[in-house]
Amino acid sequence: MTVHYPNGKKFVPTKTPNDSKPNRKIDFGNRGKTLEDELNETNEFYLSRNLAVIHKKPVPIQVVKVDYPSRSSAVIREAYYRTASTTDYNGVWMGRYIDFEAKETKNKTSFPLQNIHSHQMEHMENIVANQGIAFLLVRFSTLNRYFLLPYQVLKSCWEDMNKGARKSISLNIFEDKGFELIPKAFPRIDYLEALEKMVHQIQS
Amino acid sequence: MTVHYPNGKKFVPTKTPNDSKPNRKIDFGNRGKTLEDELNETNEFYLSRNLAVIHKKPVPIQVVKVDYPSRSSAVIREAYYRTASTTDYNGVWMGRYIDFEAKETKNKTSFPLQNIHSHQMEHMENIVANQGIAFLLVRFSTLNRYFLLPYQVLKSCWEDMNKGARKSISLNIFEDKGFELIPKAFPRIDYLEALEKMVHQIQS
Repeated sequence: MTVHYPNGKKFVPTKTPNDSKPNRKIDFGNRGKTLEDELNETNEFYLSRNLAVIHKKPVPIQVVKVDYPSRSSAVIREAYYRTASTTDYNGVWMGRYIDFEAKETKNKTSFPLQNIHSHQMEHMENIVANQGIAFLLVRFSTLNRYFLLPYQVLKSCWEDMNKGARKSISLNIFEDKGFELIPKAFPRIDYLEALEKMVHQIQS
Repeated sequence: MTVHYPNGKKFVPTKTPNDSKPNRKIDFGNRGKTLEDELNETNEFYLSRNLAVIHKKPVPIQVVKVDYPSRSSAVIREAYYRTASTTDYNGVWMGRYIDFEAKETKNKTSFPLQNIHSHQMEHMENIVANQGIAFLLVRFSTLNRYFLLPYQVLKSCWEDMNKGARKSISLNIFEDKGFELIPKAFPRIDYLEALEKMVHQIQS
């Protein structure tokens, strides 16, 4: 998808000169991009190569009042954000249904489970029950590390939390039971690579 | 696929006596419901029975201005509708990725192709290229008839239109190459039944 700015110009990504993050020794810095930006780029790449069709769902908004200043335009004048009842991303990869939630944390040792809502857990449970593939994609921003965590692992941590255990998933669990995604040149976040490993392991 | 009703009985489709198309005297009127309402009910039914997880995507809205009258609430004060770049519905059915656009028309003899946008055609093309299942679900409201039309058939009509042929798909084509969905008691619009036939035919 090409992004057109209000001035009608086509979006050309700016090349920032040198990444000046203090101790980072990686070639492919994220240059202040949000995880959402990174995933959009990845998904556009997958789409252009016919590797997968994955889109971020629009944020659900409850529209209350709309003005029509002219025949052809509508301006929403009162609206409210609604809580999403599903995950953010879904789509198709080799005929299979893919569904995931993407989150970033500045924590260095664990991922806080409060980032995930119970209705999203229910949604992923339903996906898996219908033979879809559900997972969590986490960026540990400070560490510049990315992981895919299968829904099954997320679920067991979630259930432990409900039994009174810790309210976060420790980095160790991501290292042991998740699938690390190594940032590369382009697309920076190639999650299908990690996904392939994940699906392979779950099936075998 | 067998549908089980809350009473535990196996679902047996009602045999409507004689199909009298023109003035069909059908028992299960749609009682003024929109196609969207009907599909929501169907999708909730499928979800509750673990038959499929299909959701309508939120309408994409570009938010420009947000007020925060209090700490916990946000009111959107200026926003605009954006054109959807994909179809309205997607999800998972028996592990497979399903994607469709649902439209209703009051026309009695054809479905106007202006109801479909070129970016939606592109999206469905991408879905099929990635082995997903894409189709069009049409309600002929005046006739009270519903059809699933495989993307491949839609595509050929679309290409004909671009070559100067008619700008609509005639009812005959739906009857010949589509899969009719007979409204029933509950869920009224059981499109998985028609989908199963469609997938079976495409695969064989």
